[in-house]
Amino acid sequence: MKVAILGMGSVGKGVASVLSSKDLGVMVTGVADSRSGLIDPDGINIGALLATKRSTGLCGSAGITAMDVVRGAPYDILIEVTPTDAVSGEPALTHIRTALTMGRHVVTSNKGPIVHALHALRSLAASKGTSIRYEATVAGAIPIMHTLADGLAGNEVLALYGVLNGTCNYILTRMAAEGLTYEQALLEAREMGYAEADPTYDVKGIDAAIKLVILANTIWGTSSCLKDVEVRGIDLVTLDALQLAEDQGCTIRLIAEADPSNRILRVSPRILRSRHPLVTEGTLNAITLVTDLAGEITLMGKGAGSVETASAIIGDLLAIRSRYGRCD
Amino acid sequence: MKVAILGMGSVGKGVASVLSSKDLGVMVTGVADSRSGLIDPDGINIGALLATKRSTGLCGSAGITAMDVVRGAPYDILIEVTPTDAVSGEPALTHIRTALTMGRHVVTSNKGPIVHALHALRSLAASKGTSIRYEATVAGAIPIMHTLADGLAGNEVLALYGVLNGTCNYILTRMAAEGLTYEQALLEAREMGYAEADPTYDVKGIDAAIKLVILANTIWGTSSCLKDVEVRGIDLVTLDALQLAEDQGCTIRLIAEADPSNRILRVSPRILRSRHPLVTEGTLNAITLVTDLAGEITLMGKGAGSVETASAIIGDLLAIRSRYGRCD
Repeated sequence: MKVAILGMGSVGKGVASVLSSKDLGVMVTGVADSRSGLIDPDGINIGALLATKRSTGLCGSAGITAMDVVRGAPYDILIEVTPTDAVSGEPALTHIRTALTMGRHVVTSNKGPIVHALHALRSLAASKGTSIRYEATVAGAIPIMHTLADGLAGNEVLALYGVLNGTCNYILTRMAAEGLTYEQALLEAREMGYAEADPTYDVKGIDAAIKLVILANTIWGTSSCLKDVEVRGIDLVTLDALQLAEDQGCTIRLIAEADPSNRILRVSPRILRSRHPLVTEGTLNAITLVTDLAGEITLMGKGAGSVETASAIIGDLLAIRSRYGRCD
Repeated sequence: MKVAILGMGSVGKGVASVLSSKDLGVMVTGVADSRSGLIDPDGINIGALLATKRSTGLCGSAGITAMDVVRGAPYDILIEVTPTDAVSGEPALTHIRTALTMGRHVVTSNKGPIVHALHALRSLAASKGTSIRYEATVAGAIPIMHTLADGLAGNEVLALYGVLNGTCNYILTRMAAEGLTYEQALLEAREMGYAEADPTYDVKGIDAAIKLVILANTIWGTSSCLKDVEVRGIDLVTLDALQLAEDQGCTIRLIAEADPSNRILRVSPRILRSRHPLVTEGTLNAITLVTDLAGEITLMGKGAGSVETASAIIGDLLAIRSRYGRCD
């Protein structure tokens, strides 16, 4: 199986490392970041690639673009792991459309194209006899898409509730555990590398809302978008409110909820009892699926991280091989 | 897709009900319980079958045995959901061997054959180009086998920890929440239908140990058996010990653990902090997989129940159809 990787940030490097350290029978024939690219039909030496990236910041020649790799490298699956642009979905959207049109499979961690164009991309893939998978867009290492498609096959999902943003969960956990104010906990999250310099996207609930839209559209085939989500972040959660909850055996978490029968699509801070399945600690994510047969199933795990996200990408690669490789 | 169902207890009735209420394209051509059987190549009317079972206790003619159904009904997949005999695995083991030898797939909730003969049955299935799936043997509705095979594909599982017995978890939850003694909580569990008249199998940790063996052999390809597990039950957990743990922000749970690098295969009551992911309430089950890429992934859900177990069976049926139906 041959793959091309677009994006050589944390996730791209994680995927490359795993492919070079595990013998999964996957050859990388193309890579590109925003400034350079490399194509080798005989297989790129990943160790050398990562060393070059570390020392020069480039992954190949400055004359080769991501689109050159999409169009020119010999691959079965495009791994699109460039940074998310939630507004336009570009340039990932164009990369993905081009690869699908060429009859290639796509695996992505990029939320932009999926939140904007999931159904269009799926239709395009279906028309070409190919597929697009995006396990890594939601909840990092948690195999939620696999669980929805395979593990709970035959079930109807009635509603879902989730802790989908590790930064917010870290801040709330630290406020409760150490009596920090929101500002103090945010500062600590930045120092730990869990929050961006501009944390708006996370603390205002926007990141969680995007993931909620992706999950809801996947499960119910809807075409919801970000503006359909009622969003409140954690930036107005006071230490007083949190301590009051803790005194009563409860705590506060930023919960994303989708409950179509009650027309709810919402991200907001909620009071939960301390032993509620969604009360996870630190940067962990958690998702509860309410189903007609299996009842409530909760999955919990790391929501971010280079190798953790690579785990989701690799899972998608292997799923494509097992489903499409068989009848070739 | 045609199926035959052996066993018309809680699980068998649950499977039959789900197959009749959901349009999954599955036809039932044979059923049997311990006293009767029915074969109809044109498809059995499930509503009528369940009504007959309710009124007469039989599911068909007393002259038709389970083996008659295994040998004579036209089915693609045998659903073996007779009660577990943990000592011999019989009669399920013979039913399953016969069906696999005839080139049929098997889906089972029966722990007996799987704990005794997993690898032999898998080899037999492979030699016939068929398959055996047993999602329902461990942790009820939690899709743990799907997660191991598909969701976390590419990962190496390093260790696992689980709450695998709902009866014990219910007793410990009630002791902690209400200050009941072990004996009082056990009595309550019996009244609620969560514990058998003879609760030995559950409270001594044997049921959890059997499930642990099934998980460990599945993950690591080992051939462990029940006597390889160090087992301690919850019957010696005192209310005093539990309250002491609770006073320190902890609680006690019956934890099954497999950690091959430390040669651990054990079921025992363990003290966990209250917000530990495995601290679930009531009859819930939970499993944490420690992996090399995804880190720790925890799944939580109902460990028993007619429809919940049916969910696992249905998931296996659909997985077989999607994997073997494609190239026919």
